[in-house]
Amino acid sequence: MSTNCLFCKIIAGEIPATKIYEDDKSLAFLDINPVNPGHTLVIPKNHSENLEEISEEDLCDLIKSVKRVGGAIKESLSPNGYNVGLNNGSGSGQIVPHIHFHVIPRKEGDGHKLWSQGKYEEEEAEEVASQIKAKL
Amino acid sequence: MSTNCLFCKIIAGEIPATKIYEDDKSLAFLDINPVNPGHTLVIPKNHSENLEEISEEDLCDLIKSVKRVGGAIKESLSPNGYNVGLNNGSGSGQIVPHIHFHVIPRKEGDGHKLWSQGKYEEEEAEEVASQIKAKL
Repeated sequence: MSTNCLFCKIIAGEIPATKIYEDDKSLAFLDINPVNPGHTLVIPKNHSENLEEISEEDLCDLIKSVKRVGGAIKESLSPNGYNVGLNNGSGSGQIVPHIHFHVIPRKEGDGHKLWSQGKYEEEEAEEVASQIKAKL
Repeated sequence: MSTNCLFCKIIAGEIPATKIYEDDKSLAFLDINPVNPGHTLVIPKNHSENLEEISEEDLCDLIKSVKRVGGAIKESLSPNGYNVGLNNGSGSGQIVPHIHFHVIPRKEGDGHKLWSQGKYEEEEAEEVASQIKAKL
């Protein structure tokens, strides 16, 4: 547990949340500002800030819970699919520094836009790929 | 391998892609329509259409590769964080029916909007939570 972490306080029961699922490793609860009803956050009980920090073991447990929650959302709410999203780092829209996956049920005409697509200039793709590969 | 699957053909080398990372279980390559340069797709080599279909074992291998690629993008491109996204089902924006995580490096002022936040009516959250929990 990390002192002053909002999500650690939810895990500890010090702050209320509408819980969806809980096991030894993870907790799922409703986002209080949903894109659509049923928009759920899935978090690990071990505090990790982000994808760099979380252990592979905790990450596997976490994504298994995402799969489980996503399946239940699909069965119960019959959405037109759902989006799974992880905002990693403050510049990405991550507000609470405790890693969390969003599971967002989608409805036709809900107006939720994913992203604008761009294009690479000639050789730009190869150049950026080389930069990333150098760090792998 | 699934016949006529675009991503299976990329795995098989029948269709070109700008590859970033490859191991026995997964492949990462640049999205040809990036939000920002370095926008990468990470896919399992075993064909699965979506999060419901993929095995837990393949899913763990896949998310470990996402973690690895995300770390390399962070180190190489120094973005202001990155978004990880999985569009699950055609109504969610999934175009290729072979499960894939997007890893999207973010830049200040890139104009990428995540989503609009809503609010629950009184008791609405408890009701939707009960519906989902009934399927868990």
